[in-house]
Amino acid sequence: MPYSIGRVFMFRVPEGVELLRYLNNYAEENGIKMGVVNVIGFLKNVKLGYYDISSGKYIVNELNGYYELASGMGNISLKDGKPFTHLHVVLGDRSARSYAGHLIEGTVQIAEVYIQEIIGEPLLERKHTTGNLWLWPIQ
Amino acid sequence: MPYSIGRVFMFRVPEGVELLRYLNNYAEENGIKMGVVNVIGFLKNVKLGYYDISSGKYIVNELNGYYELASGMGNISLKDGKPFTHLHVVLGDRSARSYAGHLIEGTVQIAEVYIQEIIGEPLLERKHTTGNLWLWPIQ
Amino acid sequence: MPYSIGRVFMFRVPEGVELLRYLNNYAEENGIKMGVVNVIGFLKNVKLGYYDISSGKYIVNELNGYYELASGMGNISLKDGKPFTHLHVVLGDRSARSYAGHLIEGTVQIAEVYIQEIIGEPLLERKHTTGNLWLWPIQ
Repeated sequence: MPYSIGRVFMFRVPEGVELLRYLNNYAEENGIKMGVVNVIGFLKNVKLGYYDISSGKYIVNELNGYYELASGMGNISLKDGKPFTHLHVVLGDRSARSYAGHLIEGTVQIAEVYIQEIIGEPLLERKHTTGNLWLWPIQ
Repeated sequence: MPYSIGRVFMFRVPEGVELLRYLNNYAEENGIKMGVVNVIGFLKNVKLGYYDISSGKYIVNELNGYYELASGMGNISLKDGKPFTHLHVVLGDRSARSYAGHLIEGTVQIAEVYIQEIIGEPLLERKHTTGNLWLWPIQ
Repeated sequence: MPYSIGRVFMFRVPEGVELLRYLNNYAEENGIKMGVVNVIGFLKNVKLGYYDISSGKYIVNELNGYYELASGMGNISLKDGKPFTHLHVVLGDRSARSYAGHLIEGTVQIAEVYIQEIIGEPLLERKHTTGNLWLWPIQ
């Protein structure tokens, strides 16, 4: 059951694009079906999600302006048959105050990305579950 | 002296378990003696430690309720002959306010874990040091 | 174009040294030209940068005293022909309040470091760009 490591990618994302859309496209174009992702950089106008367990919906916190992207940690797996990036982030403002959550969207000013492809079976695939979430099966 | 990479594991942790105990058991059952760990998810009732250098004890901050686990970064190495997970975490609340520290305990609502086994010699082993800490030797 | 993984290093940094200088020296002594870096630990007297886009300069937030290093995420690449560590960090204070930004400097009390060497061509090299930043080319 353990997986192994495939290709690794390290690159800078162009300015002005939406980070998650870019990562999903990058994974699809490169045929990455599973992987781990690390990103640091500098983002603009970020929407952070907090999952509200009582309603089963994400509360959206909008952070306007520019933020240091102190940590972007996540993974790539299949959702609806396509590679999907799940990324949690920590941001810092000009006073070093910090904000954290599930990345819904953010515009790239600078993003230095590391992707490590994971290969092996079974492919991890997100399924719609109770609570309106898309989760991997427990193995 | 450099190490190399062994097996890699990517999986979801069952709901309701304590995260560190689960990771330690997982490492022991799979014979993982050294590794690196990344976790994102959603935790409940978390205890975060801050090491108070003057007393040599951890101050425990209890965070009740649910938090986005924006980052869980750490490692596995031996302690008392068994694999031990040292994990530092960053949490986000419903307003995206952020909390950070040494994970003492936390209940899993969702946890997506990546473990990368590290192989080679010498095995890193935590030893009890002055200041009441368990640290690797300086090599 | 994808890269592959070379050697991996996991070690503790001696107490009292400046973290970035230590990592840069470590990379140079070990011939690491590209890599990814993860660090957790406990730092003293940290300077965190926030890039002010209007002036093209870093605002420096000085955090005196001791902080849990909840996350140090970054990379190694060439700058002026030498290995250079770019590290973003998240810190926690004794109340678990969190601070995040670009690490300018910090003194190590404890630091557990993981470095994964990346090998392949082209070598990523930072170039001075508009806005007074040192960035990788967009590929």
